[in-house]
Amino acid sequence: MVGGRITRMSVYDVRFPTSLGGHGSDAMHTDPDYSAAYVVIETDAKNGLKGYGITFTLGKGTEVVVCAVKALSHHVLNKDLGDIVRDFRGFYRQLTSDGQLRWIGPEKGVVHLATAAVLNALWDLWAKQEGKPLWKLLVDMDPKQLLSCIDFRYITDALTEEEAYEILKKGSIGRKEREEQMLECGYPAYTTSCAWLGYSDQQLKQLCSEALEEGWTRFKVKVGADLEDDIRRCRIIRDMIGPEKIMMVDANQRWDVPEAVEWMLKLAEFKPLWIEEPTSPDDILGHATISKALAPLGIGVATGEQCHNRVIFKQLLQADALQFLQIDSCRLGSVNENLSVLLMAKKFQIPVCPHAGGVGLCELVQHLIIFDYISISGSLENRMCEYVDHLHEHFKYPVVIKKASYMPPKDAGYSTEMKEESVKKHQFPEGEVWQKLMATQQN
Amino acid sequence: MVGGRITRMSVYDVRFPTSLGGHGSDAMHTDPDYSAAYVVIETDAKNGLKGYGITFTLGKGTEVVVCAVKALSHHVLNKDLGDIVRDFRGFYRQLTSDGQLRWIGPEKGVVHLATAAVLNALWDLWAKQEGKPLWKLLVDMDPKQLLSCIDFRYITDALTEEEAYEILKKGSIGRKEREEQMLECGYPAYTTSCAWLGYSDQQLKQLCSEALEEGWTRFKVKVGADLEDDIRRCRIIRDMIGPEKIMMVDANQRWDVPEAVEWMLKLAEFKPLWIEEPTSPDDILGHATISKALAPLGIGVATGEQCHNRVIFKQLLQADALQFLQIDSCRLGSVNENLSVLLMAKKFQIPVCPHAGGVGLCELVQHLIIFDYISISGSLENRMCEYVDHLHEHFKYPVVIKKASYMPPKDAGYSTEMKEESVKKHQFPEGEVWQKLMATQQN
Repeated sequence: MVGGRITRMSVYDVRFPTSLGGHGSDAMHTDPDYSAAYVVIETDAKNGLKGYGITFTLGKGTEVVVCAVKALSHHVLNKDLGDIVRDFRGFYRQLTSDGQLRWIGPEKGVVHLATAAVLNALWDLWAKQEGKPLWKLLVDMDPKQLLSCIDFRYITDALTEEEAYEILKKGSIGRKEREEQMLECGYPAYTTSCAWLGYSDQQLKQLCSEALEEGWTRFKVKVGADLEDDIRRCRIIRDMIGPEKIMMVDANQRWDVPEAVEWMLKLAEFKPLWIEEPTSPDDILGHATISKALAPLGIGVATGEQCHNRVIFKQLLQADALQFLQIDSCRLGSVNENLSVLLMAKKFQIPVCPHAGGVGLCELVQHLIIFDYISISGSLENRMCEYVDHLHEHFKYPVVIKKASYMPPKDAGYSTEMKEESVKKHQFPEGEVWQKLMATQQN
Repeated sequence: MVGGRITRMSVYDVRFPTSLGGHGSDAMHTDPDYSAAYVVIETDAKNGLKGYGITFTLGKGTEVVVCAVKALSHHVLNKDLGDIVRDFRGFYRQLTSDGQLRWIGPEKGVVHLATAAVLNALWDLWAKQEGKPLWKLLVDMDPKQLLSCIDFRYITDALTEEEAYEILKKGSIGRKEREEQMLECGYPAYTTSCAWLGYSDQQLKQLCSEALEEGWTRFKVKVGADLEDDIRRCRIIRDMIGPEKIMMVDANQRWDVPEAVEWMLKLAEFKPLWIEEPTSPDDILGHATISKALAPLGIGVATGEQCHNRVIFKQLLQADALQFLQIDSCRLGSVNENLSVLLMAKKFQIPVCPHAGGVGLCELVQHLIIFDYISISGSLENRMCEYVDHLHEHFKYPVVIKKASYMPPKDAGYSTEMKEESVKKHQFPEGEVWQKLMATQQN
């Protein structure tokens, strides 16, 4: 039986000094320190299990998200986990529609990231109490119960609950075979680890060569800061991987709409599969314009890691504004809201290629995309999940990559739990890592 | 000379217990405590002037915005005010594009509200150092300098800097006469004070009757929670004001798109000029659908108070999604971003009817709309500014309403400064007002 009164919710500001190595650098985020607001939920249940939830941040501002998590705590404390999951839609609505707090959102930015951290912890705890990895909890769940986790507010003009039910019913056909296939072969991944903007050409070549040896066949290159640099870097990668393997480029919102089209005309010769985040994540119509302009070149538009809720994804789908949809396990309101986006993507026949990387995003999102394949999309065509080879060592149940594929997690939960020692060392500013860094900077 | 090194930026969590009286209650915000994150900026300039900036909140969560203001402080401290205003676009970009902080926005929600509070304080200080009310500072400013305050990133597909310049050049024709007209007659307002959702029919009638006596001719009614209630309340107001005066209705995002259309068909008999916030503020395509459906009934769509940045407004205009555009002086990135929206609205020929109310929103936005009339729109057709009769007594330079019009402020600054005593008493949780309330609740 799932249950237990929530007696405690703690939240930690955990930061990794990744900016020191240029890891994660792109045209808009030049010096990220990969970080997380890390939530731990405890109950009075005898099993003693805890739920761990994260939301990903880039360093500064993590303390703001931590503050927002605390502002949500009165909705969580003293609730029974069983009551929450039996009316998860109601609980989601309560968190996101608080009559006072919604003004500083609603369902976007800091409060929504905080909501994700809290809900991620609750899903982790639920899956642990059921003794299943999260993807398996979702795969085994009755469609009606699954839908009862989703808030359909503001999306019924694109997807009704009845339509979503039909999708899940159809998705159950062949499910068992797909689950076996996943357990055997895993979910295809692509790598972003070779070509961060802050890396030298030398580093690029070295990392790309290593990745090829490891069996990677899909590579993403950061672009957008300087056209000549981009051409040179894309040429290096394309020359190294050859004409058959897949390359994508990612501008991290650097351009205005006309600029995006012009710039991509210059990069078209390198045959990128998609241009990711060509402009503002809020610009649905802009993405539609870019999609239309680049379609004749065979370049798709991908976006999503900063699309702040299901309403934005709904419109991107309605407007034919993207050809690859990139969910994020922490930007949206946890599993609950991601389920609604996976179902909309299925209806609009757009492949989902999740955003990952950062801290823990790979660990979390693999559950969602494996579930998507088994129970919703039923297809691997044009689909792959981002992978970045950083910071996995801090997780208790780190991702397992085999032959450039995510192998389905086997441990119970949402793979969100970090090692106690890692959390302690990297807490900001009091952790050992930061204390040492600050001491060095003072010298 | 405008200048002075910024030596201190303080921020206060100021809350008014408005929920006790049902003031400000609507279908989504049932118990708001009108609040503000209140910023005070000091410099080392000999004039000793301080800049005051606010952003409006609804109670809980104000502490989160306060935390975000602190996270921005390293961009502000030790800068010279003169340097800031000479490259205000660059400074705006710096605040909104911080490589780490932008992840928890970008330009939306908590961080953007915090940005607004900081920039509002800088505009207040600038206007004070120039010895002019903010609207007059803007009216007198050279068009090139005015444009140098605007970040055109992500809107050049709708409005280029060159087009904006042409608009301002054209706007200068007849400017002097319009300024005199404003000083004499003021800017037309409408009242929302009669018909909050938490008010009884008796209160409704009483307040409407008083407003009619005071000369109000335009009335807004909150709707969206219960159709039968809405019909009854709209009938009361329409009966009292007669067929000629103007009535608007406001659903505060309560509906899904199809529901909005259905519901408004039932309220059409009361001839509302507009339906405000029929659905999610993020739903550009949804607003376009509703606009199209309601056009034959002569009902326009209005939105904006929760549209989180210029990119959303750009698309609402591009998609013919609204007939009345409601800027907010604190939701957007202060004067800087509001200028870009005023200019886009002019290009798309959509009247701007600002959102106001809350704490200080009337005080601030009057400057923007008076400037809009004098230097951009040049028209009062279909235009009016919201007015709510609450909490003005806490401001040092409160709004002056005459014959249902906003009279242009005469004091230097942005009218953002609160009375010291009011701030002290209402600080949360340590202020006298809250200490007393908490003591009462404990008894």
